[in-house]
Amino acid sequence: MSLVVVGSVAFDSIKTPGGAISEALGGSATHFSLAASLFMPVRLVGVVGGDFPSEHLDLLRSHGIDLDGLEVVPDGRTFRWSGEYFEDMNQRETLSVELNVLDDHQPKLPDSYRDSRFLFLGNGPPVTQASVLDQMTGRPYVVADTMDLWIQTAHRELLELLPRLDGIVLNDQEAFLLSDDRNLVSAGRKILEMGPNYVVVKKGEHGSLIFHRDGEIALPGQPLGAVVDPTGAGDSFAGGLMGFLSRHGSVDLESFKAAVAWGTVTASFCCEAFGVDGILKADSDTLRGRFEDYRSMLSLLGLPVQLRG
Amino acid sequence: MSLVVVGSVAFDSIKTPGGAISEALGGSATHFSLAASLFMPVRLVGVVGGDFPSEHLDLLRSHGIDLDGLEVVPDGRTFRWSGEYFEDMNQRETLSVELNVLDDHQPKLPDSYRDSRFLFLGNGPPVTQASVLDQMTGRPYVVADTMDLWIQTAHRELLELLPRLDGIVLNDQEAFLLSDDRNLVSAGRKILEMGPNYVVVKKGEHGSLIFHRDGEIALPGQPLGAVVDPTGAGDSFAGGLMGFLSRHGSVDLESFKAAVAWGTVTASFCCEAFGVDGILKADSDTLRGRFEDYRSMLSLLGLPVQLRG
Repeated sequence: MSLVVVGSVAFDSIKTPGGAISEALGGSATHFSLAASLFMPVRLVGVVGGDFPSEHLDLLRSHGIDLDGLEVVPDGRTFRWSGEYFEDMNQRETLSVELNVLDDHQPKLPDSYRDSRFLFLGNGPPVTQASVLDQMTGRPYVVADTMDLWIQTAHRELLELLPRLDGIVLNDQEAFLLSDDRNLVSAGRKILEMGPNYVVVKKGEHGSLIFHRDGEIALPGQPLGAVVDPTGAGDSFAGGLMGFLSRHGSVDLESFKAAVAWGTVTASFCCEAFGVDGILKADSDTLRGRFEDYRSMLSLLGLPVQLRG
Repeated sequence: MSLVVVGSVAFDSIKTPGGAISEALGGSATHFSLAASLFMPVRLVGVVGGDFPSEHLDLLRSHGIDLDGLEVVPDGRTFRWSGEYFEDMNQRETLSVELNVLDDHQPKLPDSYRDSRFLFLGNGPPVTQASVLDQMTGRPYVVADTMDLWIQTAHRELLELLPRLDGIVLNDQEAFLLSDDRNLVSAGRKILEMGPNYVVVKKGEHGSLIFHRDGEIALPGQPLGAVVDPTGAGDSFAGGLMGFLSRHGSVDLESFKAAVAWGTVTASFCCEAFGVDGILKADSDTLRGRFEDYRSMLSLLGLPVQLRG
């Protein structure tokens, strides 16, 4: 099996009530790749500027991340994002966005990536996401992320993309917006009718909801006593999900549910330190241990309880 | 085993985006009892006025609810509450409260209730909750509810009550207030240090968190495509939880976790219709069926997945 991710590689500047980092390694493809690489090698597609340090490239490569698809624009500047979290770490404010080399970037897949079996389309313009899918030979298993901006400004293009997807991952506010519904369960059901086989709605610390043909599955978040920096948690979640699926190979409902659970525990590492430091602290032992704790947390006694009447 | 609940019996007037009811049967002891009665007979302690119709008494009795502890004040008016829900059904606004016979009411336990093994102290002044506990002979297994009003106005009395409890059930906003913490996990841990063996933090549609000596357990809500009226869901949750524990008889961690799961599915019925109509539609078959669905929703593949490195 082989896994491609298309997304951003960035410098993130982040402020939280507990601290701050400036111009640290970030971006959706970065967080996704580092998470997924806990399961298997990852092929990355993205773009950076000449200001992107070789240490970052070395770090990614040392985690089994193939950078043949990472375009370097020597006289360009890398994408920059800065944001701030407040007391309620579920809310954040974007302070600034500098697209730089990402502006109008058209991702190109190296030939060596085109026959990959699994593809994750990180958040981006739906037309760009579709153009990546067009470059694949064969029919990969494809999951995409999106955001409010595209739901609002590229609605038709997003609706055209959805039937081509096996799965879509979005957060609760995005699900409300896309479905024009205020109940999360009926919102997810409406998005399922737009085409994908699985809809995963992320609810931050409250976990996620999986929508599929036969119903819904709610899985809780991993309880975390201290959230240092949630930036990249959604991408780490997707990385764990796709990493597990690609490694495991089957995509039936039980496997997909397990994949969401692996994504949940993978994302929990991301939140425990600034930037990519959290996910870098995870290894196969700590990840497996946390998954087994999560699995046993959710296992319930099936008592033959005698009900009244 | 035997189970006592002390709480309110009320007339509720409720408005939601989908409809309204006026002066319908409600109150914490009512919702709790009807939920718990799915598991076993319940002994109710409360007060109503001369305006409380005998049909309501008949309904409660027909569900195995002992009303020896329900005081009737012939020339008094029953407690009334009215509230409104908006588009986001997680938020509600109290429109009016008429305490009436509930004002300064001192619950008295009939002799026949005093040796009960399980006791639920519905939301009320901590001093009143403590006085009920004082009336019990022996040492019942006791769980209490509370609310922001008592956390703010009877803080010392609440702190004195907490070490006498086996468990406390409160919602996320109340947990933030009581702990003076904005992370829900560390909030729950702080409340655990105040005395009870179990702290259950309710998060509405997002499920609940259980805090115990050795850690935390997150359980999701039952996904509901339509929430008609969430009034009483918290009391139905507590009713299912205590009903299961009383019927089951043991209170170890696995049993308590299962009890919270039974409470979760019990509460889901409450939300599906106005007032008590939702819980009245549940019976042992539908409840058991929904619990088995919930249990299987949370059961995860334990694949021997081969992680990298």
